Amino acid sequence: MSGLFITLEGPEGAGKSTNRDYLAERLREQGIDVLLTREPGGTPLAERIRELLLTPSSEVMAADTELLLVFAARAQHLAEVIRPALARGSVVLCDRFTDATYAYQGGGRGLSTARIEQLESFVQGSLRPDLTLVFDLPIEVGLARAAARGRLDRFEQEGRSFFDAVRKTYLERAALAPQRYRILDAGQSLAAVQASLDALLPELVGRCRG
Amino acid sequence: MSGLFITLEGPEGAGKSTNRDYLAERLREQGIDVLLTREPGGTPLAERIRELLLTPSSEVMAADTELLLVFAARAQHLAEVIRPALARGSVVLCDRFTDATYAYQGGGRGLSTARIEQLESFVQGSLRPDLTLVFDLPIEVGLARAAARGRLDRFEQEGRSFFDAVRKTYLERAALAPQRYRILDAGQSLAAVQASLDALLPELVGRCRG
Repeated sequence: MSGLFITLEGPEGAGKSTNRDYLAERLREQGIDVLLTREPGGTPLAERIRELLLTPSSEVMAADTELLLVFAARAQHLAEVIRPALARGSVVLCDRFTDATYAYQGGGRGLSTARIEQLESFVQGSLRPDLTLVFDLPIEVGLARAAARGRLDRFEQEGRSFFDAVRKTYLERAALAPQRYRILDAGQSLAAVQASLDALLPELVGRCRG
Repeated sequence: MSGLFITLEGPEGAGKSTNRDYLAERLREQGIDVLLTREPGGTPLAERIRELLLTPSSEVMAADTELLLVFAARAQHLAEVIRPALARGSVVLCDRFTDATYAYQGGGRGLSTARIEQLESFVQGSLRPDLTLVFDLPIEVGLARAAARGRLDRFEQEGRSFFDAVRKTYLERAALAPQRYRILDAGQSLAAVQASLDALLPELVGRCRG
């Protein structure tokens, strides 16, 4: 028995959490065991690393430091949560994973793909998500929604060109491996996005039982 | 102008800090600019990572997580403190550096040398200490001194076989590159250890001015 590893990607304000909960409910109705989690975070220690990553500070964080912290949290999350859940056959629905590292630390901060790949292999071995849902949204909409939520975190304080690069990286990665990615238009109504998820459901249920 | 990077290694209770301060004083008497620092830590962010590493917790920290946190702190310390100090020609005296990673995460935790080397190159490029002073001490003496200092940190709570492996790794590394390492018998009186440091001084001063 081996589970299914599904990641949800996209900017703040794209509805990842709401849709993650919706998808979990639909899968559970089919009797499928689902684990909801997120990155960076997912264990108490990894959540403390998340805090270091997100809290604005007067000390400039070196790009390498940021990348290594992201993967430190990921190593813990994999060891304590994701790998055990997959081993017992659960569907893992994870709000952000390594695609976010390529988008934010690669596209946003300008770290090379090769450097990120090196740590991806170091930490994950051959483990990759089975399916990645990219919630795509025009930059302005995401920024406005994040601002409306109140105080901005260390990433949300970045400028427009940062988020342009993040979005571009997500779309480029999805285009390179269409069998693994589904791009969802998160600018639509929630009902329309959820109809797209409903349409995915038979395939997911089939893969869980396959 | 390029400075001199000197690291001090060894277990808790070996007198690294006392002797680091002593060596700094001797070098400053010669008009040499000295920066004192330590790992893990050396910047506010890196010190927060140190806290995650040292504070005992009920959550088991995966060995990979520990290794990545150590190098995340190191990347920050290098970018913010060590590289700028070396660039302006200072002598950097650092209490623990990557030899400690080989000793504690490699020898102690059993991570392979190859995995540590991979992150060492990733984070440091070609930068290595110019000189490493290993303060060698019988296990029992170090453990007794650490216990006498009060509450034990996450590493100090380890058992004897962990510290045996730490000590063995330091000595093996020193034996493989005798031109870079000096082993000091930290079981001697402080006066005797400091006499050994005095004997090193002409060489150090020469290299600073060379």
